[in-house]
Amino acid sequence: MKAREVEFEGHLIDSMIFTKALDIILDLDGEFEILEFRVGKKKDDPSYARMIVFGRDDAHLEQILKELHKIGARIPDIEEVELAEAPADKVLPDGFYVTTNHPTFVRYGGEWLPVEDISMDRVIVIRDGRAYCIPIDEVVRGDRVVVGEKGVRVVPPERPRKSTVFEFMGGRVSSERPTERMIEAIAREIYELKLKGGKIAVVAGPAVDHTSARNALAALIRDGYVDLLLSGNALAVHDIEISIFGTSLGMDICKGRPVPGGNRHHLYTISKVIAAGGIKKAIEKGIIKDGIMYECVKNNVPFILAGSIRDDGPLPEVITDVMVAKKKMKEALRGINMVIMLATMLHSIAVGNLLPSYVKTICVDMNPSTVTKLMDRGTHQAIGVVTDVGLFLPLLYLKIKEIEAKE
Amino acid sequence: MKAREVEFEGHLIDSMIFTKALDIILDLDGEFEILEFRVGKKKDDPSYARMIVFGRDDAHLEQILKELHKIGARIPDIEEVELAEAPADKVLPDGFYVTTNHPTFVRYGGEWLPVEDISMDRVIVIRDGRAYCIPIDEVVRGDRVVVGEKGVRVVPPERPRKSTVFEFMGGRVSSERPTERMIEAIAREIYELKLKGGKIAVVAGPAVDHTSARNALAALIRDGYVDLLLSGNALAVHDIEISIFGTSLGMDICKGRPVPGGNRHHLYTISKVIAAGGIKKAIEKGIIKDGIMYECVKNNVPFILAGSIRDDGPLPEVITDVMVAKKKMKEALRGINMVIMLATMLHSIAVGNLLPSYVKTICVDMNPSTVTKLMDRGTHQAIGVVTDVGLFLPLLYLKIKEIEAKE
Amino acid sequence: MKAREVEFEGHLIDSMIFTKALDIILDLDGEFEILEFRVGKKKDDPSYARMIVFGRDDAHLEQILKELHKIGARIPDIEEVELAEAPADKVLPDGFYVTTNHPTFVRYGGEWLPVEDISMDRVIVIRDGRAYCIPIDEVVRGDRVVVGEKGVRVVPPERPRKSTVFEFMGGRVSSERPTERMIEAIAREIYELKLKGGKIAVVAGPAVDHTSARNALAALIRDGYVDLLLSGNALAVHDIEISIFGTSLGMDICKGRPVPGGNRHHLYTISKVIAAGGIKKAIEKGIIKDGIMYECVKNNVPFILAGSIRDDGPLPEVITDVMVAKKKMKEALRGINMVIMLATMLHSIAVGNLLPSYVKTICVDMNPSTVTKLMDRGTHQAIGVVTDVGLFLPLLYLKIKEIEAKE
Amino acid sequence: MKAREVEFEGHLIDSMIFTKALDIILDLDGEFEILEFRVGKKKDDPSYARMIVFGRDDAHLEQILKELHKIGARIPDIEEVELAEAPADKVLPDGFYVTTNHPTFVRYGGEWLPVEDISMDRVIVIRDGRAYCIPIDEVVRGDRVVVGEKGVRVVPPERPRKSTVFEFMGGRVSSERPTERMIEAIAREIYELKLKGGKIAVVAGPAVDHTSARNALAALIRDGYVDLLLSGNALAVHDIEISIFGTSLGMDICKGRPVPGGNRHHLYTISKVIAAGGIKKAIEKGIIKDGIMYECVKNNVPFILAGSIRDDGPLPEVITDVMVAKKKMKEALRGINMVIMLATMLHSIAVGNLLPSYVKTICVDMNPSTVTKLMDRGTHQAIGVVTDVGLFLPLLYLKIKEIEAKE
Repeated sequence: MKAREVEFEGHLIDSMIFTKALDIILDLDGEFEILEFRVGKKKDDPSYARMIVFGRDDAHLEQILKELHKIGARIPDIEEVELAEAPADKVLPDGFYVTTNHPTFVRYGGEWLPVEDISMDRVIVIRDGRAYCIPIDEVVRGDRVVVGEKGVRVVPPERPRKSTVFEFMGGRVSSERPTERMIEAIAREIYELKLKGGKIAVVAGPAVDHTSARNALAALIRDGYVDLLLSGNALAVHDIEISIFGTSLGMDICKGRPVPGGNRHHLYTISKVIAAGGIKKAIEKGIIKDGIMYECVKNNVPFILAGSIRDDGPLPEVITDVMVAKKKMKEALRGINMVIMLATMLHSIAVGNLLPSYVKTICVDMNPSTVTKLMDRGTHQAIGVVTDVGLFLPLLYLKIKEIEAKE
Repeated sequence: MKAREVEFEGHLIDSMIFTKALDIILDLDGEFEILEFRVGKKKDDPSYARMIVFGRDDAHLEQILKELHKIGARIPDIEEVELAEAPADKVLPDGFYVTTNHPTFVRYGGEWLPVEDISMDRVIVIRDGRAYCIPIDEVVRGDRVVVGEKGVRVVPPERPRKSTVFEFMGGRVSSERPTERMIEAIAREIYELKLKGGKIAVVAGPAVDHTSARNALAALIRDGYVDLLLSGNALAVHDIEISIFGTSLGMDICKGRPVPGGNRHHLYTISKVIAAGGIKKAIEKGIIKDGIMYECVKNNVPFILAGSIRDDGPLPEVITDVMVAKKKMKEALRGINMVIMLATMLHSIAVGNLLPSYVKTICVDMNPSTVTKLMDRGTHQAIGVVTDVGLFLPLLYLKIKEIEAKE
Repeated sequence: MKAREVEFEGHLIDSMIFTKALDIILDLDGEFEILEFRVGKKKDDPSYARMIVFGRDDAHLEQILKELHKIGARIPDIEEVELAEAPADKVLPDGFYVTTNHPTFVRYGGEWLPVEDISMDRVIVIRDGRAYCIPIDEVVRGDRVVVGEKGVRVVPPERPRKSTVFEFMGGRVSSERPTERMIEAIAREIYELKLKGGKIAVVAGPAVDHTSARNALAALIRDGYVDLLLSGNALAVHDIEISIFGTSLGMDICKGRPVPGGNRHHLYTISKVIAAGGIKKAIEKGIIKDGIMYECVKNNVPFILAGSIRDDGPLPEVITDVMVAKKKMKEALRGINMVIMLATMLHSIAVGNLLPSYVKTICVDMNPSTVTKLMDRGTHQAIGVVTDVGLFLPLLYLKIKEIEAKE
Repeated sequence: MKAREVEFEGHLIDSMIFTKALDIILDLDGEFEILEFRVGKKKDDPSYARMIVFGRDDAHLEQILKELHKIGARIPDIEEVELAEAPADKVLPDGFYVTTNHPTFVRYGGEWLPVEDISMDRVIVIRDGRAYCIPIDEVVRGDRVVVGEKGVRVVPPERPRKSTVFEFMGGRVSSERPTERMIEAIAREIYELKLKGGKIAVVAGPAVDHTSARNALAALIRDGYVDLLLSGNALAVHDIEISIFGTSLGMDICKGRPVPGGNRHHLYTISKVIAAGGIKKAIEKGIIKDGIMYECVKNNVPFILAGSIRDDGPLPEVITDVMVAKKKMKEALRGINMVIMLATMLHSIAVGNLLPSYVKTICVDMNPSTVTKLMDRGTHQAIGVVTDVGLFLPLLYLKIKEIEAKE
């Protein structure tokens, strides 16, 4: 039997961390004895717990401690982080540490270094005295990579307490809730975040490209509510097809019915943009006169269009190498405080994987399974709305305008 | 080898009836020889076809003719319908004819009698020289029931030709179409139907009971757009809970968050209405002050609430015997020209089964599979919209008001 | 400021009860001070907590205590339950207590009476010194009904600890899990429950009626694994249609393709069973020779077929009054230890509402949203499997047979 | 008023081509007069129709003819195809012809050239006297590109007539059909296609990677039923994780429950394969010992893993540039007779876009909307099965083995 003392501090009960700790120990067939347990007597007091954890042997104990570590357990005697060299590019030393999406610190040179660019399923390297969270494919030979859990501290975000829609809905999906009220609450969150100088990214799928939703997103960009647009080839092509031909995938967007020969508009649009030298040039030349991409370019809102194997064309601005696209997305997301995901599972999951746990996310999709999947990131900073994005966006824009008018 | 001559008349090619006829013959391993085929030379000319159908033997030929009959084939020498007596209540003679939902005529006494109250999966009886379509459980001993296909003529509706949303979308589901445009087109259909004195039934599930959608439906009733409401216990209870407590299933409908103890409101509502002696009395006594049921009662719009095994209570007006409820629904639907089905699969399918094929139906649901199922009634008079009914209804009301203002 | 002392005992942290208690107090803007908190030092030790709860005034404090009560809080000075008379049939006294689905006790005559037939959203009456949980419509004038929370004690079930699929999956949906492994685990649960003399009810929708699934369910009944079948008219009609005509809804069940004229089989089946005098008589007369209903009758497994407004016919055994059906279902479910819900949302939710929280439930449906909805009963005794019931049942039967052979 | 004579030949009525022709003319507000209409008198006789089509003016007539052309209309006086030079790489001449996925011929030098590599939404270029169907991004400066519809002939496939599952289910989705019978029919199709020397490609998503389904797919590859595997990084990583760690996304695949620290296995797997130099090398070195990728390599079945922005790693064999991946997929699909799509929307749609209309496709997914979307390719050569791929694959393998044993 091997034993080790661990301690926890924070809103232990409120955030269910202590419950999870006991669960982990029992699920792994470990034992525990609680030495001390101080619950905060008042609302804002932190709690503190100290316990001895028992394992069958060193390996078993180590396994338990690894899991406890991930939810914030501290092993009182502070040790330096353990490092090992990467033997080749993209090749990692044995037992390398895999990151969570929570804020993380490593004990290095007697100090707690914050890990920069934290996001999940990556590794930590120390370069020039700073700790970076990087994907496998950016590891270069000789990189000093963190191995094991020693000297690594994870700080899961506390549950939001003040009265916001995130606090109320945090981590849940609203398929039974009144959609219009949810949209009002989200409009308020967006408005207040922008008031405080926050930054918002929009991740959008091609379903956004029907008249009213497209116009609403274009208006949100024009009015300064969007700081970054992440999407793919299809969204841009459909958006530009509307501007050039007045059709979306060959359908007249005003009458909502197919235009004869309209299916060709899709490829004709791509060809026109390629001939012009890209989206920006096509806007300069007056070929594209309105819409989502137009407003991005005119208002200097950066956009990243990542390629997929479904793409026709693609448009010149599309980044066809997915690893390059992913890297650019990661960089562009730095400093973003909220991400609004609109009707795209692939892009939303990809972006979700690149975000730290404290970035607020709002996921909107008609399919409840998609929303549930997107929400499953172990964070209270996400809300899911199961609704029709084609009606959601115009209403969101209207609600924001109403709030603007009132304040 | 047995042969028989059959003939078809109408928009044969356009409505794919001729294609189906050949399909049926070949699927059943029959043979055919076309004797005459006149295609209408202009848009509105009917076509005419005459052919010999071959079967291996009498039974095989009969089988083929049975199927051809259902899509409108006529066997030129006109025979009287064949009748047989029901040996006991609810017991049918062998080989009884099963109805489709298309307009149907029977040759009786040398005349073509229209079959009254036609709807699918029922039987035809002749009473006092008139032909009625009735369900099995209404057959009484001695009823003269139609057996076989002889002397029965089915007239499937032609595809709508003029430029309406039914012609355009007829029989299809709009999950990829711009929702807002669809709603506009539906608003126009409703407006024009009412202008011409048409009658509209609404079939609604409890998902309608969130503030804006509920208010929109109540307003549509108040403004005379609804002639009949078909629903269940839950819709009425939630609607009344909002009126009495301001909550829906215990959630504050303005703030969209649960009210402490709110889960009790559901049963308290039921209890209050029972104590008052029913919905109508509760409105008279001023207990219920607004909402869907309130507007129905105040505007003399009939409603039928059919019971289900999920019901709490139920409210006194709920018909707990499903066969009684079904019979009342069938009667109330007589003369209805359009049915709007809102977020309820059980009630929508039940109502769909009671309708002739020429009644227009609009099905709205968030789940594409539900809409597809509801559409599957062999008619071009149905359109399906995959969207959030909570946003659909307020927008529909708005669009109708815009049309009213313009005209 | 008003204050009251409350206490909790049990696996407080493990079952998250303490977390919920603090949540409730803070959500309602109350305050608390923890007086004592003893965490069980070992796995099986219960925990104990005592705290003072503060409210703004009596009403506010009462509101908080009501909510705490529902999760098991005790107010140390024990008071008798408060009763009030029902002024008329189905009419309840003000402030009546609404039940949860957890085991509940009331303090009456100085003793703790267990509330019989507990299930959610009902009321408690005291009759002849015993406490009964009954629906509103069974309340009769003069019944002594529990009002308020005083003297009522709710005991939410502890989370299952031993290594079963319920412990592992408890309260979760398996859309990402290996279906075959899940089925194996469920087969073992069923086998072991029956070994111990447990009783199993099956709730089944008509989707079960395709060859292999129907045969598997019939075999499970024959082999004694089913003690009660709850379903509707459609399941029975399709099952019997297969036995009489070899078709299901007109499709040849061996070749999987429609049989000419097969759509009539549905009504012909109903007519034959009505003519025979019901399902049992039709089996006696040799009209029905195999299948689900056949095995129920032959093996004396009771079945309840509840009517719905979609029903054709219906068959004579169908209970067309939903309140009567519900009452019979409630009675039949007494003593059942596990309920398997197969591809039917309406019946599954109805049955779920009739069950105490400690009855194990297994929900199988292709639609993840349906499963999620069915699981949402505040219990760890439920598991959901998102899969095709047509493949699930044959495999389940196979796995049970493999376990039988091994043991 | 402008007029032009057109003619049609083939199974016009049976394939609904004539119906569609009339629809097109009427939808575009054109007029027609039928000059001749000969229906095949016997089952296998082709039909022939000749009609005059009227348009308001040249442009209108041209528009109608364009649409008629796409469904196979011939304009009797045969003209050479019209060509125009591409002014720059990836830049197309005005009015370029956009391909369908049906077999297509162009009239060039007095002869009908078959268009090679036909698939939808591409362009046709003439190079060295041969006609090629290529995507926009492969057009090079100076390419002679087909413009307009003149001299282009499209031959939509006739509906399958012999009694196969494709004939029966062609173009439809089986959510109400008995799954087990469908699987049997598909097993027979696969077996017979391989007997005749046909080639089968499998497109698979990561949901396949649960024990039984993975083992079944591996066995199908080993037994020679798969000639090409198209997938992404995730499928390969999970498959290899099972081989190395016995877990899939950190879950024990035998017990179906998470393994402590198992979430790391995902990245550890990627790292091990990168370190080995790729999948093939890792198999050679004995690191990977079984599974889908193992069988591909051991049995020389080519595989293409296309990258996506969700990918971790990725594995060295993954093609991260989507346009390169797409081109390789197109090449590999040459000569494939059947494609089985398993639980992946992105890859299935991408592959569907690369296929000619006569390649048989079988789409399996749990989500009915996904299957419906995949089927929507205007072909009768597709069948969709809504079921659980985790149970589908083992059963499919079993059924194929049963057929093998019998024959």
